[in-house]
Amino acid sequence: MRIDGVDKRSIWAASGGETVEIIDQTKLPFDFVTRRLSTCDDAAEAIRVMRVRGAPLIGVTAAYGLAMALREDPSDTALAAAYDTLFATRPTAINLRWALDRARDHLMPLAPADRFDAAYALAGRMADEDVEINRMIGVHGLEIIKSRAAQSGQVNILTHCNAGWLATVDWGTATSPMYQAHDAGIDVHVWVDETRPRNQGAFLTALELGWHGVPHHIITDNAGGHLMQHGRVDMCMVGTDRVTASGDVCNKIGTYLKALAAHDNDVPFYVCLPTPTIDWRVSDGVSEIPIEERDPDEVLSLDGLLPDGEIVRTRIAARGSPAANPAFDVTPARLVTGLITERGVIDANAASLDQLKNAMVG
Amino acid sequence: MRIDGVDKRSIWAASGGETVEIIDQTKLPFDFVTRRLSTCDDAAEAIRVMRVRGAPLIGVTAAYGLAMALREDPSDTALAAAYDTLFATRPTAINLRWALDRARDHLMPLAPADRFDAAYALAGRMADEDVEINRMIGVHGLEIIKSRAAQSGQVNILTHCNAGWLATVDWGTATSPMYQAHDAGIDVHVWVDETRPRNQGAFLTALELGWHGVPHHIITDNAGGHLMQHGRVDMCMVGTDRVTASGDVCNKIGTYLKALAAHDNDVPFYVCLPTPTIDWRVSDGVSEIPIEERDPDEVLSLDGLLPDGEIVRTRIAARGSPAANPAFDVTPARLVTGLITERGVIDANAASLDQLKNAMVG
Repeated sequence: MRIDGVDKRSIWAASGGETVEIIDQTKLPFDFVTRRLSTCDDAAEAIRVMRVRGAPLIGVTAAYGLAMALREDPSDTALAAAYDTLFATRPTAINLRWALDRARDHLMPLAPADRFDAAYALAGRMADEDVEINRMIGVHGLEIIKSRAAQSGQVNILTHCNAGWLATVDWGTATSPMYQAHDAGIDVHVWVDETRPRNQGAFLTALELGWHGVPHHIITDNAGGHLMQHGRVDMCMVGTDRVTASGDVCNKIGTYLKALAAHDNDVPFYVCLPTPTIDWRVSDGVSEIPIEERDPDEVLSLDGLLPDGEIVRTRIAARGSPAANPAFDVTPARLVTGLITERGVIDANAASLDQLKNAMVG
Repeated sequence: MRIDGVDKRSIWAASGGETVEIIDQTKLPFDFVTRRLSTCDDAAEAIRVMRVRGAPLIGVTAAYGLAMALREDPSDTALAAAYDTLFATRPTAINLRWALDRARDHLMPLAPADRFDAAYALAGRMADEDVEINRMIGVHGLEIIKSRAAQSGQVNILTHCNAGWLATVDWGTATSPMYQAHDAGIDVHVWVDETRPRNQGAFLTALELGWHGVPHHIITDNAGGHLMQHGRVDMCMVGTDRVTASGDVCNKIGTYLKALAAHDNDVPFYVCLPTPTIDWRVSDGVSEIPIEERDPDEVLSLDGLLPDGEIVRTRIAARGSPAANPAFDVTPARLVTGLITERGVIDANAASLDQLKNAMVG
């Protein structure tokens, strides 16, 4: 998407096909710093300290990291060592393993002399594939926004967390329809939940939308219900970390509360996802998906910007009080109007998902 | 309630019946500072800059302010001037006007020489009346907690915002049942919504509960739905700014979302209120109660504590992004299990409220 009118991705090839550059996301939203990754260790460090984040972007960064290693030493041993180094950065990231496996399986049969070029090209293809998937989510979501715009003119969309291009290579998932609607000249306005405790909405989604020029307002996570009661939200669009085979949606904590309010006020509630996000092994999200309890300090402290430009972490709660910090919740399928995937929009229920599964296998 | 084992109120007579002292709430939660109010201007300033807050506490402070003025000059002119000075501090506070009218009507017929003593005593009576109302809310709420404890042992109560003793003279409204349950030896644990944007939950409710020794955890406003889905909330208890004649509840923004989640998970949702909070002129809360839109900077910036003890305000959102800040929302009566008043617990519907009204008149 665009930053002040210039097209950007979250990762891009540089130096005539020798290295790669990223936006250092640890500096966002207050500083914009790009960073060159020239070695496998650079890529591993970027993943480990979360200079890159979001499943697709982590996978692509790892694939580039493998290429960097093979430029130094294209041997089988070096390939295996680079795989291990990169995998160790975030061993629970499913997409990281998938990307590394794919790259290794592609490269191992090749002659060492061909491996760097092949690896670099493959990483680029993986980036392009991610862009295309997210573009297609936007194509399908755009139709929904278009038909609403035909009724009401301005379309007000509420979103939660950051399912934006900074978490993918480009477009994002939930933001892809918004960007495409905006680019198509539709009068779209986004209500951005700040998304406590990590403020990914107020920090990243608001930043992205502002860069691209999409009108928006940040709201507290408390405000959406009131806005829906008063007809000020036309639809909700959120991303997801995992969708079950019956259509339950695991996403950032608080999503469920917005889905309840949408249901209570007849506001359509859409979930945007690439189909690999569907976990076919799980059916009932509430009982089957374990929810990560994260560090309570994420609730009790927050990074902020002083007027002089310094970034400081302050305590934002009474001294001594403890906190609890469940990171995700599950929105039951009955509250979800539709799942917007790269293959089209489907209902959130077992029958529709089963049909999709068969179509994908077929 | 107690602060580190010592009984406290939010306002108390001092210097042998000459002045009054308050907790300076602008310094909370990070500093505990008491402040002596010796003149009418001291009281007016305390109300204006919100060293005292909450309808009952403001009313009592104003009544003491009137007494301070009459100690200097007990004439009719001085009484009228003090009334005007105090009323001008927060002209939209309905309880402030009510308290000042009551004091003036009581004092004007008296001989000037008797006015100071009478005014000081009246302010003390008003404080005691508020304490008794909130104590009685707790007595009735305690029965509800008791019957839950009989089933499950530990009782987990979720609350939103600060409906605590710092907003009244003592006990608080929603907190009164919690304090009484704790003091009665019931194993009560409170989930404290941080209550963005002003963090009254994380700042004040957590502080109060911690002072008194009531077990609690601060949670983000996003977390309650997930906790209810997993059986970790036994009931919700919140305060209110206004209840309509049909039982709709206007309270701090986000209350509606918690009521939806409670309803979706069969968790009882109680609203604690003194009966003067009922606005008999209003029926449908969503359409009839105008919701204040407050300064967007409350969403974009927040006070926090640096490790060295300094309190600083930082920006906690992307630069340049605007915010919207509706301050309250309305929870429809259909989502409310019961209204806990000083006169007992009633259903949240027009018939029950009408019955209460008749009983109060009768």
